[in-house]
Amino acid sequence: MRIAALGEFGLIERIKRRVKTDRSVFKGIGDDCAVIRFNADKYLLMTADMLVEGVDFLRKDEPFLVGRKAMAVSASDIAACGGLPRYALVSLGMPKRSSVGLADGLLEGMRDIARKFGINIVGGDISRAHRLTLDVSMTGVVEKRCLALRGGARKGDMLFVSGALGGSIRGKHLKFTPRIKEARFLVTHFKVNSMIDISDGLLQDLGHIMKESGAGVVLYEELIPVSKAARRREEALYMGEDFELLFSLSQKEGTRLQRTNGNFTFIGNIVEKAEGLRLIDARGKKREVKPAGFTHF
Amino acid sequence: MRIAALGEFGLIERIKRRVKTDRSVFKGIGDDCAVIRFNADKYLLMTADMLVEGVDFLRKDEPFLVGRKAMAVSASDIAACGGLPRYALVSLGMPKRSSVGLADGLLEGMRDIARKFGINIVGGDISRAHRLTLDVSMTGVVEKRCLALRGGARKGDMLFVSGALGGSIRGKHLKFTPRIKEARFLVTHFKVNSMIDISDGLLQDLGHIMKESGAGVVLYEELIPVSKAARRREEALYMGEDFELLFSLSQKEGTRLQRTNGNFTFIGNIVEKAEGLRLIDARGKKREVKPAGFTHF
Repeated sequence: MRIAALGEFGLIERIKRRVKTDRSVFKGIGDDCAVIRFNADKYLLMTADMLVEGVDFLRKDEPFLVGRKAMAVSASDIAACGGLPRYALVSLGMPKRSSVGLADGLLEGMRDIARKFGINIVGGDISRAHRLTLDVSMTGVVEKRCLALRGGARKGDMLFVSGALGGSIRGKHLKFTPRIKEARFLVTHFKVNSMIDISDGLLQDLGHIMKESGAGVVLYEELIPVSKAARRREEALYMGEDFELLFSLSQKEGTRLQRTNGNFTFIGNIVEKAEGLRLIDARGKKREVKPAGFTHF
Repeated sequence: MRIAALGEFGLIERIKRRVKTDRSVFKGIGDDCAVIRFNADKYLLMTADMLVEGVDFLRKDEPFLVGRKAMAVSASDIAACGGLPRYALVSLGMPKRSSVGLADGLLEGMRDIARKFGINIVGGDISRAHRLTLDVSMTGVVEKRCLALRGGARKGDMLFVSGALGGSIRGKHLKFTPRIKEARFLVTHFKVNSMIDISDGLLQDLGHIMKESGAGVVLYEELIPVSKAARRREEALYMGEDFELLFSLSQKEGTRLQRTNGNFTFIGNIVEKAEGLRLIDARGKKREVKPAGFTHF
């Protein structure tokens, strides 16, 4: 059987079922970060993301932007759990005839994000590879009361996104700012019930919140903020690489959030699981949709 | 300028010079692990290693052994710092048409090492890639008094290796046991002044201890334990992938170690930096050699 038959998420599910962890692991495989018991007040967050030439970026892309993205993608996972990124390991697979300029550019891009968010680049590995490959693993810290996961959405929750969605592939995916500041504002001022970063498309990542929370969702199509870079509204639903936050709060907390100046948009509500995922258009017409978006296989 | 002109270690040095870290980082780029201040008694250790098809293993190699190696290589770095491995993130880059059997085999191999050493596989990433690529980042813990680094060798120290060296490429590199038990025995019973794992060949890794410690070395060629798999004595000096421990202790501690039953062999002494690296053969003849071995570029 090919992996394509199982799908990326089917494969992750398969691995998750086989892996056992000890009591020190609060949350293992299957969220934006692993969550490790650290001390009385805090958890450690751990995440890793691999970027491959021809998949996540193109050979012609500026090395600075590629390095920047590698660091930003992992930082975005830490943000999605409400934490602060602290340490990064960088594994670089580079073709044999690579120039020192390429390595310099990648590093400068990584340092750009690292400096902005107080991330220490503490080590990694350099290997020969056929195509440029970057894997950044990142460790962060989060106060226990601030931890946000995919599985905490409750019926009645208001659903929000940061920023605008769609069309990221036309530029933003190489230049986005990981939503650490926004996530920290949220988790320190509000009780966030569930959160994820949108890396594979709104509907697909919403599907993770639904699955982990055992919940359904109603989305108000007209409310979804569509990026200027998007060519069609569907891109805001299905296109990957937005790296915006998608999160839910209780009605009370959500109403309170709407009174702030943050760049957060109310887009829907958490409902019973049996109701599945529905879009309501401007005329009030409902249609059922499937969580779908970018997948590697 | 091509990376090859700078070399793998030249490139690491270049990166190290440009990267700044904050006070929480006890040791950043340039040792087997990064060392992070954790609490009053302990440090966190962090390391990452990337394995690439055609470089670190061949397409025909058993997936179980490839997965096993990916986990073992990172665990060996934790061992080299005297620590216990605790958490692993696994990034898998797999060709589009890979079989589920490949993923299963890799995972079983990783679980084999994880189970033996109490390592929690807590997350990672799955990506499409042109050639099979595995990056394992690992976090470990070490008591402050047990930390061993490359830079602590002192004049007069006795130099030891675990196991036997050379010929690893003919099988051992896919089946080796990371020397965690041995390292923990050493750091809990002895004062280890410096330690490294031999991944790129005895002389090259010895070169790292010399450089970081500002020291020279005299090696007794006849004492170096040569693996049965080695075809020539030189393989024990220059061939990579042994994943044995190379470490130094004071005369007093070294003499005490020699009275134990551990599989450790005395091979030389730390001397003044100005003496460089010298091999002494069975007839007492000295020759100066250069630290050299495997390099990716």
